[in-house]
Amino acid sequence: MFELNVYLEEKRRVVDAALEEALPAPGRRPAILHEAMRYAVFPGGKRLRPVLCLAAAEAAGGRADSALPAALAVELLHTYTLVHDDLPCMDDDAMRRGRPTCHVRYGIANAVLAGDALQALAFELAARTDPPAPYPAGRVVSELARAAGSLGVVGGQVEDIAFEDGQGNAETVAFIHRHKTADLFRAALRMGAIAVGSPAERLEALTVYGDNLGLAFQIADDLLDAGDLKPDPMSCLGIYGLAGARERATQHVDRAVAALEGLPPEGAEPLAAVARYVVERKH
Amino acid sequence: MFELNVYLEEKRRVVDAALEEALPAPGRRPAILHEAMRYAVFPGGKRLRPVLCLAAAEAAGGRADSALPAALAVELLHTYTLVHDDLPCMDDDAMRRGRPTCHVRYGIANAVLAGDALQALAFELAARTDPPAPYPAGRVVSELARAAGSLGVVGGQVEDIAFEDGQGNAETVAFIHRHKTADLFRAALRMGAIAVGSPAERLEALTVYGDNLGLAFQIADDLLDAGDLKPDPMSCLGIYGLAGARERATQHVDRAVAALEGLPPEGAEPLAAVARYVVERKH
Repeated sequence: MFELNVYLEEKRRVVDAALEEALPAPGRRPAILHEAMRYAVFPGGKRLRPVLCLAAAEAAGGRADSALPAALAVELLHTYTLVHDDLPCMDDDAMRRGRPTCHVRYGIANAVLAGDALQALAFELAARTDPPAPYPAGRVVSELARAAGSLGVVGGQVEDIAFEDGQGNAETVAFIHRHKTADLFRAALRMGAIAVGSPAERLEALTVYGDNLGLAFQIADDLLDAGDLKPDPMSCLGIYGLAGARERATQHVDRAVAALEGLPPEGAEPLAAVARYVVERKH
Repeated sequence: MFELNVYLEEKRRVVDAALEEALPAPGRRPAILHEAMRYAVFPGGKRLRPVLCLAAAEAAGGRADSALPAALAVELLHTYTLVHDDLPCMDDDAMRRGRPTCHVRYGIANAVLAGDALQALAFELAARTDPPAPYPAGRVVSELARAAGSLGVVGGQVEDIAFEDGQGNAETVAFIHRHKTADLFRAALRMGAIAVGSPAERLEALTVYGDNLGLAFQIADDLLDAGDLKPDPMSCLGIYGLAGARERATQHVDRAVAALEGLPPEGAEPLAAVARYVVERKH
């Protein structure tokens, strides 16, 4: 019987070991920069995005290890966005995952630069050409770059900051959720599939899955953040309502699972389990 | 007879027109982000790095237009580093090229994010796979990523900030010049050559040229910044001395020009002229 916890933990361990190797050694010059980069990356969270990238490679009919550099690239990209989002000029968060944020620990300049270097390293890994032959580095990098850029994650963050300062509406919430969160989930799935030369119909199925999973994940995240508090009327939950938000999250999970129909069962099963987990998790 | 001004102006125009097309339209959502990105990119300076990338493609025996996306990538990468270097947490510069800096005009958060998006766009262009066939996207992206990351430009900036706060020595100055400046010049040359499938010996010649040009450029820049003032004893010029710095710059130019020896004359001529110009320019 498939056990999601075991699956996630096994894949997470592979990702963490590979991240450990991919980052420059902590003492390497400039030492403070490499320390700050590692501080942002370790210990990580669930590593959901890179795990999904590996799962997509398998669901597409390939081997997870062929997609490992792509998976690391997605995680490093995600990590850099957290470092920059926490900065005083953005969300001004002093704590993350129970520890001081990167800029609190290393100073603002080093945190900006650690984020910048993590983004560059993400692209270095996405382009990794060993083994050289059939790996479509250009396509993998393009997926990541589009998801990361002004029409993706960065665009979502810009609207999110503007949103917090002013009036929101359902359309703005949809824009933020799609670009700030779903675009990188989508890219994680697509990069995994493209890295192993996925047939077009599997790539399409994984794209629909990734879009819907990302949207469900973000709504579930907002619900977890809100807890039992009455939501701010300007916020995402204020607009959808708590019950409305729960219903939307469930709809996206259903669509994500439905998209997996044509995939081989052993590839679809972990992805379906992750989708259900995303809305049921308690943290 | 070869006229450097005409050559630089012609190539600069090609680069500017292509940058105009490569950046999302100014009104595209989020409009403030796309405005801030364009504000940082236009009007540019001499566009020396992308012009060198195109010149390298021709010196390697290829067509400049095959290296055009790579050339734009180098310029966008350079531009993003200027936006982040100007931030209050780094050099805290209010003016650049006679105008308010990006964060003064658009706010700190938008400037950080515009820089982030410019870096992502740089990699999107470096990976551009049209025409799809022989373009080695993975190698071009790898060159840019290594030059841009913690062992390249970002690493140089970290040491530069630390240097300004404390004691410098010749070895630190060499580290900063190499990584903050020369690494991206080197990458510009190599990316142009790799984009057109350069033979190994031409790639090697252009690499040596790029390294030395970058080092000469940075010393010349420091000399221009210093003007007639007595140099800060902690600064680069304080360590080399004015005459020592001029001598070093000239040595690097000589080495850069010598490296071009095996290249076809029509490819070597513009590169040699740029190298001499870099130390003779008055701004």
